[in-house]
Amino acid sequence: MQLGMIGLGRMGANLVRRLVRQGHDCVVFDQNPETVAGLVGQNIAGAADLADLVDKLSQPRNVWVMLPAGEITEQTVTELGRLLAPGDTIVDGGNAFFQDDVRRAREMKEKGIHYLDCGTSGGVWGLERGYCLMIGGDKEAVERLDPIFAALSPGEGTIPKTPRRETRDPRVERGYLHCGPSGAGHFVKMVHNGIEYGLMQAYAEGFEILRKVSSEAVPAERRYDLDLADIAEVWRRGSVVSSWLLDLTSSALAEDPALSKYSGFVDDSGEGRWTINAAIEEAVPADVLSAALYARFRSRDREGTANKLLSAMRHAFGGHVEPKK
Amino acid sequence: MQLGMIGLGRMGANLVRRLVRQGHDCVVFDQNPETVAGLVGQNIAGAADLADLVDKLSQPRNVWVMLPAGEITEQTVTELGRLLAPGDTIVDGGNAFFQDDVRRAREMKEKGIHYLDCGTSGGVWGLERGYCLMIGGDKEAVERLDPIFAALSPGEGTIPKTPRRETRDPRVERGYLHCGPSGAGHFVKMVHNGIEYGLMQAYAEGFEILRKVSSEAVPAERRYDLDLADIAEVWRRGSVVSSWLLDLTSSALAEDPALSKYSGFVDDSGEGRWTINAAIEEAVPADVLSAALYARFRSRDREGTANKLLSAMRHAFGGHVEPKK
Amino acid sequence: MQLGMIGLGRMGANLVRRLVRQGHDCVVFDQNPETVAGLVGQNIAGAADLADLVDKLSQPRNVWVMLPAGEITEQTVTELGRLLAPGDTIVDGGNAFFQDDVRRAREMKEKGIHYLDCGTSGGVWGLERGYCLMIGGDKEAVERLDPIFAALSPGEGTIPKTPRRETRDPRVERGYLHCGPSGAGHFVKMVHNGIEYGLMQAYAEGFEILRKVSSEAVPAERRYDLDLADIAEVWRRGSVVSSWLLDLTSSALAEDPALSKYSGFVDDSGEGRWTINAAIEEAVPADVLSAALYARFRSRDREGTANKLLSAMRHAFGGHVEPKK
Amino acid sequence: MQLGMIGLGRMGANLVRRLVRQGHDCVVFDQNPETVAGLVGQNIAGAADLADLVDKLSQPRNVWVMLPAGEITEQTVTELGRLLAPGDTIVDGGNAFFQDDVRRAREMKEKGIHYLDCGTSGGVWGLERGYCLMIGGDKEAVERLDPIFAALSPGEGTIPKTPRRETRDPRVERGYLHCGPSGAGHFVKMVHNGIEYGLMQAYAEGFEILRKVSSEAVPAERRYDLDLADIAEVWRRGSVVSSWLLDLTSSALAEDPALSKYSGFVDDSGEGRWTINAAIEEAVPADVLSAALYARFRSRDREGTANKLLSAMRHAFGGHVEPKK
Repeated sequence: MQLGMIGLGRMGANLVRRLVRQGHDCVVFDQNPETVAGLVGQNIAGAADLADLVDKLSQPRNVWVMLPAGEITEQTVTELGRLLAPGDTIVDGGNAFFQDDVRRAREMKEKGIHYLDCGTSGGVWGLERGYCLMIGGDKEAVERLDPIFAALSPGEGTIPKTPRRETRDPRVERGYLHCGPSGAGHFVKMVHNGIEYGLMQAYAEGFEILRKVSSEAVPAERRYDLDLADIAEVWRRGSVVSSWLLDLTSSALAEDPALSKYSGFVDDSGEGRWTINAAIEEAVPADVLSAALYARFRSRDREGTANKLLSAMRHAFGGHVEPKK
Repeated sequence: MQLGMIGLGRMGANLVRRLVRQGHDCVVFDQNPETVAGLVGQNIAGAADLADLVDKLSQPRNVWVMLPAGEITEQTVTELGRLLAPGDTIVDGGNAFFQDDVRRAREMKEKGIHYLDCGTSGGVWGLERGYCLMIGGDKEAVERLDPIFAALSPGEGTIPKTPRRETRDPRVERGYLHCGPSGAGHFVKMVHNGIEYGLMQAYAEGFEILRKVSSEAVPAERRYDLDLADIAEVWRRGSVVSSWLLDLTSSALAEDPALSKYSGFVDDSGEGRWTINAAIEEAVPADVLSAALYARFRSRDREGTANKLLSAMRHAFGGHVEPKK
Repeated sequence: MQLGMIGLGRMGANLVRRLVRQGHDCVVFDQNPETVAGLVGQNIAGAADLADLVDKLSQPRNVWVMLPAGEITEQTVTELGRLLAPGDTIVDGGNAFFQDDVRRAREMKEKGIHYLDCGTSGGVWGLERGYCLMIGGDKEAVERLDPIFAALSPGEGTIPKTPRRETRDPRVERGYLHCGPSGAGHFVKMVHNGIEYGLMQAYAEGFEILRKVSSEAVPAERRYDLDLADIAEVWRRGSVVSSWLLDLTSSALAEDPALSKYSGFVDDSGEGRWTINAAIEEAVPADVLSAALYARFRSRDREGTANKLLSAMRHAFGGHVEPKK
Repeated sequence: MQLGMIGLGRMGANLVRRLVRQGHDCVVFDQNPETVAGLVGQNIAGAADLADLVDKLSQPRNVWVMLPAGEITEQTVTELGRLLAPGDTIVDGGNAFFQDDVRRAREMKEKGIHYLDCGTSGGVWGLERGYCLMIGGDKEAVERLDPIFAALSPGEGTIPKTPRRETRDPRVERGYLHCGPSGAGHFVKMVHNGIEYGLMQAYAEGFEILRKVSSEAVPAERRYDLDLADIAEVWRRGSVVSSWLLDLTSSALAEDPALSKYSGFVDDSGEGRWTINAAIEEAVPADVLSAALYARFRSRDREGTANKLLSAMRHAFGGHVEPKK
């Protein structure tokens, strides 16, 4: 099947590579012409701009947009809306805000263009491991693009089958799911990332408790000097907390138990925030997911008003002077 | 190798079964004689009481205690201290409080008895899957009991190897770890369970957000009726949040997407609480692990003083009358 | 000064009463004619509808809207925009979402109508104690309505003066503040309410800890049967936690230490939620304010997916069956 | 009445000053002889050591210990146990751990010595404002020392009376409370400080949200440059969040709105931690009080394992490189 790919960053380029390995053809575009040139090859044609990309695709066209959420995605979809023809399909595979999908799908539908939102998980490992795909939009387009989704997803592989799924949609066990109408794909991906923040923070707190049991705050008779790399590794075997994130943790700790190349500054992207906003709209108590997000905020803002105000109050009522940092 | 097992509940009985499958001999005891009788068989001898169990073991003896943490474990270890001889070894495989291990190991050492604490993860799946073992205590005893630990643990299996572990202790990749001196095993198991609470709560919150996006609190155009069972399943494939807990979640949701046999009441055991106490002693901010514990507390205490006081204040300052439940 | 008041609920009616006590005139309207009739009296004229209210005011008119945030406020402001003349002023004194104020003020400005947003704190006590007013909008209108704001606010009273405020705006010490341009008043009121949630939850948790130290979970030698009413009262005197909310708490506990008329179900209104959304937009870690909001969510949703899923996982990995509720 | 005071720090010295102002006599001791010399004067005699202090008191003696919780308090009470006679009374007015009080009271009772634990709130303001006293121990001693407690506490003052307290213990309205048996006083003081942490953090988060609405993360049309000092001041008047901590906040912000002399590093003392431990023992969900404590932990630990591990995972699964600090 033929697919146009717009945006050749870490994710977009690997999606293309995985598709052509499985026998599909791609026409690719990126703002940076060198990036395009670097990817062009067998079954991969380059495009000079969006119009050129659209020209090079045969109808009905399939165009996958793999750009950062926000302005650039908005502009690209808008322009594609002008360039494409009725019956064509746009897939937004980035981490767009699902409410933007709802609007864009409606706008595109007025032009007869299909618009799918496709949450794409897999990161730098997806090229080999396959991508977990969470798709929203109209059924017709989802079914037409099935060869693309099937090629990108991991397939059944060696993962043990879940019992009692015999009568259910078999695509799910291959790693892609039509979640529902427009926005549903990115909504599910958003919550996926919200959960990811919570899982990561749970491990992070646990390993910090393991590390600091060696500190002088702990009485000597139960002060342990634990090997975090070995602990992460042993938990991969038969324990309740085994996971892919733990696999990565074990690997990172084996490489450098002190994690000395990291500064303690942790960024966040939109999905963790949107997940909390969704929880609040639904009145779902999301204590863990919020705390995970806030831990990242705190990692970056070290001398904020809040902390200073605490010190100011402590000084005011108790004469406390904070110790030097 | 010969092992005495005290306590034949879900965990103890399966440990014995796994050991004899791998060629070891067991002498078993439980408060309930019928339980003992039910397990006795090839390579499994029954004991009438602790003294009988000790008698039936050849020296140096190895006795594994697999009882609920607290009074019953304390009494059993104390009595074993009277019955055993110098050079014998006690393994506490239950979920004891690690500070109790430190004390017990010291008391047993005065009698020349080795005392190991062994955190044992694996639950009802351990018989087939193997148990992840986190061991604290003196090196001599750990090494002498190596055949037991090797038999109980999962072994390398088909789990991909973590890079850069070539020069490290190979036992870890087979699923058991000598964590450090007395108490270290149960300390690591305690934090393991603390993390487990956090991971579980992260999934729980996420799935609740997915469920409630179908509620009327959400505007109709982005109100989705999502299939939670399919979402859990698809995330098992190539996504960042895949884990063993997710495998179990997918299975539970496939069996009954409404989870209708559960009441919403969630119990907790000691480890989650001790983990927070440890975090506080070490000054580690454990927001996620605490929130996970508190969510369980809240699930059980529905008309507490705290909530009533909130309503009383709201009534007092704003005349608010809470809606009916 | 003459003021039109729309909405004669608990807040609106008392605002009118406080204004006429201080020599102002009001024209009042409510959807319920009986409510209007009940309030009409000396210096208070009734209106049959919005048009009648506008007719009865002399130009430049001042109209205060005191309605629930949302649809009804939106409709009322829209209709006032049709009825009023350039130079007139609308004050939204309800708990509107500040972003709605920004839009409405812009729409009204196009018609030459001033629009102020006025966060109004004081609840059922405001009639006697005065209202704390947080005002957003253009300076001209704020200054023209000064007599209204001065009459509604508490005045300096007997509250000790804060040092080093001599050169600052004296209106603040009388209890009203021009916070900034449109929306700033309701933004400040929103955060005020967010803080209120946090303060309330801090007391609520503390009193629950005091209550439950009498429970059997606590060893007998340090199990206390504390008098919560006396504790709340003594903390009003010289302690660091004295506050107006504590005054109300002491009063509620003196009336009924068991708080038996409250069910444990706690509602929330928009401000607490919007505060968290604002925090997330600004990347401010709002752990306490979020936890306070979520505690209310949890008080109302007792058998949600999240808790059931926890039980399902516990059953799946450990065979745990939750105790009866 | 005559009282011995041991420990002449900020709190101890002011307690002595307030007592002599009200006509009592004190014998004072401090490790630092210069501190003793600086306080000696009319109705204040100095002591060279504990034995001298005991000698200078007439029987039955009353000795108030006002030292940091921990080793120094333990040693002092132990030595007083040797020096004092049956019928004498020790008051521990510091921030001792209540479980230590239970043990000490039992030990002293064996010698016929009364032991009271007295939580003392008031900080640097107590000399003028009076101290809020939360007392645990036997009734006989509490009643004998009533003149001391009455002199230290604020008295009824001008604080409005709480309705429906007519039949209750009038001492409470004067600012001191006999909470219960040994340990109850410090338990109540401990929870008081736990609540204090929660209240402080609620304000801190709120003011940070107010500050950061001026940041570029917020769209320009609703980006406000708010005056935090004015907001704190206006909330003192008629608002729901008025409190003594807010009075102090208003004062600190009026002095320096940027709070530039504070570093963002916030210390904590034992009570906040013990409060969480108590909550966990009682299974009380203390989300807000925990979050407040953890925010202080985070303010001090800026490059911990937890944050680094988050970055390591992000790098491992997504190739993310954190931005520079």
